Amino acid sequence: MPNHLKAVPHHKVELGGFWGERQQINRRETLPIQYRQLAETGRLDALNLTWKLGDPNPPHIFWESDVAKWIEAVGYALGNSPDPKLEALADETIERIAKAQQPDGYLNVHFTVVEPEKRWTNVRDAHELYCAGHLMEAAVAYYEGTGKDKLLRVMQRYADYIDEVFGRGPGQKRGYPGHEEIELGLVKLYRATGEERYLDLARYFVEERGAEPHYFDIEAHERGDEQNAWYGRNHAYNQSHVPLAEQRAAEGHAVRAMYLYAGATDVAMETADQEALWTALEALWHNVTERRMYVTGGVGSAHHGERFTFDYHLPNETAYAETCASIGLVFWAQRMLQAHADGAYADVMERALYNGVLSGVSLDGQQFFYVNPLEVTPATIHGSQTMPSTKVERQDWFGCACCPPNLARLMASLGGYAYSERDDEVWVHLYTSGSVAGLLGGRVTIRQDTRYPWDEEIALQVSCDEATRFTLALRIPGWCRGARLAVNGKPVPVADLLEAGYAKLSRTWHDGDQVTLTLPMPVERVYAHPAVWENAGRAALQRGPLVYCLEEVDNGDTLASIVLPRDAALEARWSPDVTGGVMTVHAQGLRRALAGRGRALYARQPGGWVPCSLTAVPYYAWANREPGEMMVWIHEC
Amino acid sequence: MPNHLKAVPHHKVELGGFWGERQQINRRETLPIQYRQLAETGRLDALNLTWKLGDPNPPHIFWESDVAKWIEAVGYALGNSPDPKLEALADETIERIAKAQQPDGYLNVHFTVVEPEKRWTNVRDAHELYCAGHLMEAAVAYYEGTGKDKLLRVMQRYADYIDEVFGRGPGQKRGYPGHEEIELGLVKLYRATGEERYLDLARYFVEERGAEPHYFDIEAHERGDEQNAWYGRNHAYNQSHVPLAEQRAAEGHAVRAMYLYAGATDVAMETADQEALWTALEALWHNVTERRMYVTGGVGSAHHGERFTFDYHLPNETAYAETCASIGLVFWAQRMLQAHADGAYADVMERALYNGVLSGVSLDGQQFFYVNPLEVTPATIHGSQTMPSTKVERQDWFGCACCPPNLARLMASLGGYAYSERDDEVWVHLYTSGSVAGLLGGRVTIRQDTRYPWDEEIALQVSCDEATRFTLALRIPGWCRGARLAVNGKPVPVADLLEAGYAKLSRTWHDGDQVTLTLPMPVERVYAHPAVWENAGRAALQRGPLVYCLEEVDNGDTLASIVLPRDAALEARWSPDVTGGVMTVHAQGLRRALAGRGRALYARQPGGWVPCSLTAVPYYAWANREPGEMMVWIHEC
Repeated sequence: MPNHLKAVPHHKVELGGFWGERQQINRRETLPIQYRQLAETGRLDALNLTWKLGDPNPPHIFWESDVAKWIEAVGYALGNSPDPKLEALADETIERIAKAQQPDGYLNVHFTVVEPEKRWTNVRDAHELYCAGHLMEAAVAYYEGTGKDKLLRVMQRYADYIDEVFGRGPGQKRGYPGHEEIELGLVKLYRATGEERYLDLARYFVEERGAEPHYFDIEAHERGDEQNAWYGRNHAYNQSHVPLAEQRAAEGHAVRAMYLYAGATDVAMETADQEALWTALEALWHNVTERRMYVTGGVGSAHHGERFTFDYHLPNETAYAETCASIGLVFWAQRMLQAHADGAYADVMERALYNGVLSGVSLDGQQFFYVNPLEVTPATIHGSQTMPSTKVERQDWFGCACCPPNLARLMASLGGYAYSERDDEVWVHLYTSGSVAGLLGGRVTIRQDTRYPWDEEIALQVSCDEATRFTLALRIPGWCRGARLAVNGKPVPVADLLEAGYAKLSRTWHDGDQVTLTLPMPVERVYAHPAVWENAGRAALQRGPLVYCLEEVDNGDTLASIVLPRDAALEARWSPDVTGGVMTVHAQGLRRALAGRGRALYARQPGGWVPCSLTAVPYYAWANREPGEMMVWIHEC
Repeated sequence: MPNHLKAVPHHKVELGGFWGERQQINRRETLPIQYRQLAETGRLDALNLTWKLGDPNPPHIFWESDVAKWIEAVGYALGNSPDPKLEALADETIERIAKAQQPDGYLNVHFTVVEPEKRWTNVRDAHELYCAGHLMEAAVAYYEGTGKDKLLRVMQRYADYIDEVFGRGPGQKRGYPGHEEIELGLVKLYRATGEERYLDLARYFVEERGAEPHYFDIEAHERGDEQNAWYGRNHAYNQSHVPLAEQRAAEGHAVRAMYLYAGATDVAMETADQEALWTALEALWHNVTERRMYVTGGVGSAHHGERFTFDYHLPNETAYAETCASIGLVFWAQRMLQAHADGAYADVMERALYNGVLSGVSLDGQQFFYVNPLEVTPATIHGSQTMPSTKVERQDWFGCACCPPNLARLMASLGGYAYSERDDEVWVHLYTSGSVAGLLGGRVTIRQDTRYPWDEEIALQVSCDEATRFTLALRIPGWCRGARLAVNGKPVPVADLLEAGYAKLSRTWHDGDQVTLTLPMPVERVYAHPAVWENAGRAALQRGPLVYCLEEVDNGDTLASIVLPRDAALEARWSPDVTGGVMTVHAQGLRRALAGRGRALYARQPGGWVPCSLTAVPYYAWANREPGEMMVWIHEC
């Protein structure tokens, strides 16, 4: 088996700086708010199994997943530092979950109290396996964060039961989840417990998917659903149109796809002889990142089906780009990065994190976007029917509330995405102040000091009790040209050290050794492939990993009438008053003049230009001031 | 009462040239095809009233309207020249209609055989009055075209009955149609019969609309529909949110709006003291034509509700621009033109006719568009959910088949849009070869010889038995600069004669006098108001009254990657092989190079340009060869 990177777990990583602040807000604001939402919407009381026919607010088929993600987030948060109040709430919630488990191990409130006769009759749509996967992830996170194994044992029992129900043996259902997720949960459960059958079950779910005769057809027939007419409409919706190993293009519901690909990457890393699966995963990676991904790291172009559509179809205003899908892309990218040790994966991970993921939560950690458009037009503001889920202001919560707790668990575990180890190598993927301890068997600590992503300089300091020979692999982001490196003040040529996106410093390190990495980050224009219909004649602005956008609050309305001349200088400036302090980007633009045009809707002349000062803010920070128009892809002239 | 223009009826006008050909195809192809469709879909047999509960294919609430429009079209066609076969089919159909009339005069198949208990219980949605209006228009057209008054008498009986049911008297329903149309039919019935009560009823329907307490609410309450939840969602959907006289912006379903405005213009012309109504109609006209109309004369920006949205919201790809709505705009423009004798109205009429209307029918007269987008992208071709009704190829027929027979009746009566008279004035609105006879009490004939809209020269010849003093008012289109005029070869200065868009030649005319009008028609670029989001940085091409578009069949795919340099020469060329002969427009454009770009979806450089030859065809002719991408608004650089 190849020698993959091993991500340094989040609890060994202390995050400061940019991400540290997001993580603190996540803990201080987001986690308590979400607990309140879980309680107020009935998701917690539902676990008491007291709902009866005729009662209002029947427990929904995927409510456990929201509770699970919150517990998972709390598990990570407690792994970072203690918080007795949060821990007590989580313990109490876990008690309820444990009591909701049925004697045979089954655990799903809806199919226990609302439709008990329908257990496992519709795994295509009913989310039982999806919820199970989230609960497994929660169980492992809570165990690792607190040492408490109550939920872990509950979920082992449930996993054992699922392992009895599903599989290729006699009397077993040859099914697999309609919404993938359990693959990720089972691999984590395997890694936490060492029980190989959980890995085997994950592998089974990945490999059985899409086999003929098609399980979802068989199941529909058994339900008497001969029409087999459903929301997803075809098996591509949940990536079961053909076996994954034969897939070459990302199809269907984007979150489902991301979870499947991430879970399959886990399975491929943990098992042998997976050439066909790797071939598929790499083809899918290229398809997603080279043809179906927004510049923000958003994925899923269509509202209907929240799904992938076709190559280069990346409409801005009607983008779906669900927060969960970008989070799923981070999961997948992080796993591909461990498997391949290639900075190209880290680039996508960073792109999604700083843009399409972070836009999903307000800067105060209290409100959320489900849909992340790249353009807000007057039609968006009027509430166009073609993008019913798009909001111009973040929301407190959603009926389908997958995104908020997904953000919470990612933010709480973000340290786990920053570093990896392999043999005598330490890999740095993300730059943010803070430190990672216990590297290389506990011998080495590395601390970062940086204002990244605002500043281009990152100071790294090695601490070790004794001189230690190892390779420090520092990511040189794909967006960066002219990176510079110095060790103890002495420049070293980056080009000579560069390998697949990482500068590899192999030497004997001494306590207090200093590395200075400089990643020049001028504001740059980004152009989409010419086949992206909506971006013709437009440029996006990017500085470092941050994609920028124009907002009405800074630039007035009718943003489409603004152009950025091809040769206009782009200046970055620290703006302490904008959303708590961001680097804003400024340029002299032009705006179509209205004066003298008269009332005509159509005219022989386009009208003159009026100079205007443009201010762009990081995309993640949009919609944190006043609602209004927004535009990532700016017209050029 | 002001002295309005009086349109010369179509049967006095012989159309040759461009429109003559369309009219012949309409008669030869479209009318027989539509009869077959009416028969095959059960719309004719339904008139026999033999449908019984349990039978398939129940007669729909608006089937009569399709039959009516076909009879109306046949009436016009027979007014132009005899056709015994068509006439026999129409006579037989009229027999069926007459037999379907109930003893009290009521006439609607659905509410006779399917839901008899629901007669007049939901005039908001049930289209009874709409169908009645179409049957009235058919009755008048057939009577005027053939002298046969059977249908006219049927419809007078029905109108008399409706006049009993609706009104402000005791025991009457204070209702009005949910889908306007009957206003137009009643005014025609009044003009054909001289019965003032039909005009009064039309006026009542126009003026009662939107009064409080709101009839549609009262009616919903009486039906027990307390939710009052319906497709249209609010009274603006059918323009009854406030009385018409108080309306200032075009709201709701575009076809309904156009029919109402046209009918109200008729009422305003026929009645006195209508200042408030005129103020509203003029404000609505400005709103539509200066803020809510496509460059093709299409109206209705949204698929959902087939409706007007908000100022400057004119998306190209997702345009609805229903064929019927452009036809309705022609109706309204023609009436405003008679009322105001201003070429601005004729300009809009001509724009809609040559573009948004004519695109609704294939050049062979056999297939139809319901929706007329201004851009076909790969998403359109993939069948995007956001524009479910948009087709990339014209269709044989539609379940809701309003557009095909609407086209048929307009094409058959088109001569009626070309000329007007008033006192000793003859007005020429449309240029096309052919002649108009019997002007000024039968003393004058005018004949046009022209290849307009392809050629800029129009030769007009006056025929009169004796010298006659009259004013010949020749429209100088708003798109035209530098029009030239000569009488008997002698130039006369247009500027001196120009008044509200017409050059007025007042003189004593002798038999054989020749007028030569030259309307220079270089290809010109048209620019939308900067507030039209989707057209930023784009130009449309127009030559004379024709709007042009790029089609994939001529220009390859990925039309969005093409730009037309601001200074590129635009050349018009006669292309006999393109859709039977059209003037094509040619330019040297540029296309984004793909070579050397690599696979990256996002890059720091937009890539180079490759020169490309652009060929644009008239918008009306699109989708007559191979299906593919199409684009009206072309990127400029």
